[in-house]
Amino acid sequence: MCRQTVKRHLWQDITLFDGLKTHAEKMAVLVEGAKIQQICPMSQLPADLRDTAEKTCQGGVMTPGLIDCHTHLVFAGSRANEFEQRLEGLSYAEIARRGGGILSTVSATRAASEQALFEAALPRIQALIADGVTTVEIKSGYGLNLVDELKMLRVARRLGHQLSIHVVTTLLAAHALPPEYQQDADAYIDLICDEIIPKAAAEKLADAVDVFCEGIGFSPAQCERVFQAAQAHKLPVKAHAEQLSNLGAAALSARYQGLSADHIEHLDEAGVAAMAKSGTVATLLPGAFYTLRDTQVPPIDLLRQYRVPMAVATDGNPGSSPIFQLSLMLNMACTLFRLTPTEALQGVTHHAALALGLSQTAGLLSPGRTADFCVWDVNSPAELAYAIQPGRLKQRVFNGEVTA
Amino acid sequence: MCRQTVKRHLWQDITLFDGLKTHAEKMAVLVEGAKIQQICPMSQLPADLRDTAEKTCQGGVMTPGLIDCHTHLVFAGSRANEFEQRLEGLSYAEIARRGGGILSTVSATRAASEQALFEAALPRIQALIADGVTTVEIKSGYGLNLVDELKMLRVARRLGHQLSIHVVTTLLAAHALPPEYQQDADAYIDLICDEIIPKAAAEKLADAVDVFCEGIGFSPAQCERVFQAAQAHKLPVKAHAEQLSNLGAAALSARYQGLSADHIEHLDEAGVAAMAKSGTVATLLPGAFYTLRDTQVPPIDLLRQYRVPMAVATDGNPGSSPIFQLSLMLNMACTLFRLTPTEALQGVTHHAALALGLSQTAGLLSPGRTADFCVWDVNSPAELAYAIQPGRLKQRVFNGEVTA
Ligand SMILES: [Zn+2]
Ligand SMILES: [Zn+2]
Repeated sequence: MCRQTVKRHLWQDITLFDGLKTHAEKMAVLVEGAKIQQICPMSQLPADLRDTAEKTCQGGVMTPGLIDCHTHLVFAGSRANEFEQRLEGLSYAEIARRGGGILSTVSATRAASEQALFEAALPRIQALIADGVTTVEIKSGYGLNLVDELKMLRVARRLGHQLSIHVVTTLLAAHALPPEYQQDADAYIDLICDEIIPKAAAEKLADAVDVFCEGIGFSPAQCERVFQAAQAHKLPVKAHAEQLSNLGAAALSARYQGLSADHIEHLDEAGVAAMAKSGTVATLLPGAFYTLRDTQVPPIDLLRQYRVPMAVATDGNPGSSPIFQLSLMLNMACTLFRLTPTEALQGVTHHAALALGLSQTAGLLSPGRTADFCVWDVNSPAELAYAIQPGRLKQRVFNGEVTA
Repeated sequence: MCRQTVKRHLWQDITLFDGLKTHAEKMAVLVEGAKIQQICPMSQLPADLRDTAEKTCQGGVMTPGLIDCHTHLVFAGSRANEFEQRLEGLSYAEIARRGGGILSTVSATRAASEQALFEAALPRIQALIADGVTTVEIKSGYGLNLVDELKMLRVARRLGHQLSIHVVTTLLAAHALPPEYQQDADAYIDLICDEIIPKAAAEKLADAVDVFCEGIGFSPAQCERVFQAAQAHKLPVKAHAEQLSNLGAAALSARYQGLSADHIEHLDEAGVAAMAKSGTVATLLPGAFYTLRDTQVPPIDLLRQYRVPMAVATDGNPGSSPIFQLSLMLNMACTLFRLTPTEALQGVTHHAALALGLSQTAGLLSPGRTADFCVWDVNSPAELAYAIQPGRLKQRVFNGEVTA
């Protein structure tokens, strides 16, 4: 039979967190080619399977491959200098006067060739891969013009083609006001709606469109125009919402069936209710909360009460979250936001997949799905959130292939 | 000449943080056998050296091998369960009633064989090794009786003998009151002074003696008795001091020429002055501060003003800091305690060596010293504190040998 030509691999005595829950019994997982063929309790494992399939490592905790559903990991330049200056007592104003802040990343990213950008991003995405991530979202947002936004998205796509990781791209042209438009934000919104979105859509460079809705970003009215343009090009939307203040961006995102509203420290109950109704995911970014020494915790209890799925991501970016370690976010989500370990794990698996519109293909382990998963050298899934201890990833499987 | 039989290795184009400062010029570092033979600017590198020495990797940032000067990484059992229960809403009292807390670690550690304890500690110390640590301090303190305190110290020594890392051991019998002595702390102090310290000293199992001076630990008077016994056996002392309240433990430690006072969130100016006078190091433990969601920051400005050296460590332990990643503490020391990147780096190198009484052998890179160092794939030392990004350790050199 021709199916014999595809290798079958068997994982045994697995403690399985499948993306939603931990199974009580020790499980067996059978992979055929790139797909999960079967998952069953060890006690029900057919003898012929046990005999014919190739054995892989035994024991450990298996989770879906981790999903980092919010990153800005393609950028040039370093802001380490600025980090140092701030700690040496320089004010934000003085740092901005010296050319620091997000616009320094914009200058460096515009100046970088596609190859240079690719090489700068490599160690960051490799850190995530080594940490068990099999799907990563990457945003544009440091180009802030047609050419450089598309350049960033092309680099993100290339990372996905060349490395063993699925890359989802998000156009975030509405990240900050470019220097050329300091006096005319609406004209920049025109550029985004009339040129950048259509072109990104035509070249299939963006899987979604994001906005930064904030006093220091764009107004809800401006963000809505971006959402309308995205919708016209059949691109799903999402928003950086209610991070520093409550402008109603999460509810706005929900009105456009947004995939997610991210940060949401200042989200109110009306916003939570709107998200629940539209199925918009709450993406929690404890790394930014930690780095900015924020004290306003997102409304976790309300999100639970309204059953809004909570995702957890790194927000990996050069300014407010220079963090490229998703496993650390499991601990930070618990320690800083009081998520349970199970919620945190759902946040980097099934709920992160939901936030990317990938719930049919990623973030859950069940027969028929792509075999993207991790095996960890721990006794229980909770230990992954509890201890900050790199090196416990025993095996990373991507498209059915062991890659680490 | 016989020196030709010892291999000479040359590092070139190095940005050198030597444990105290970053050199302005690109440097060359020559290693002969286990020792650093020469350090000079590239511009002054003799041509014959360039030609005869074996080349190793070029470029990058070199730091001394990192030193984690405060850990409790030898223990049995896991407290992941307890972490989960707390987040699921159980009170501390209820968790204690169910046998949680430090005494659960004591039970598990007492029950574990020396071999089991060794195996449990392995992945934790290996995580530190992979993170660039070349010297680690390990405390006892979960045995709380003669046999099991010595067992813990023996395991710590064995880790040092079997792995490429220097291990410094600290007897911390005065960590918590064992169940057998709940009504009579002074009798337990008798046991420590009359039996445990003398025996640990006789078997050369402890390099120092530590105490937990706190309302929930031991009183200053009890700690002083421990210090006196340590002194009688020529063992240097240190203290877990002023973590939850100000009992004057840092000043007490200083009166006994303490190597360090650790935690010190509630330290006052008199304590700082006393430490300055005795040369006692302030060991900052941002991981415990983070895990306990503490808000009282140690008096960093006073420590600077009095020129008290600040060390930074993980406090890796199963309860208040389940963290085995020293590089993360660089970021936490900056983000949470507002250290500069240079101070944080001194804290895991030269100042950590001071805290262990090793300032003559570890934590500084200069000719004649042991070649324990790391080469990092970053552009500046500040980047190590700025970004949380595992995988940037390019080379780890221990006793002159490349080990990672
Ligand atoms: Zn973001
Ligand atoms: Zn401690």
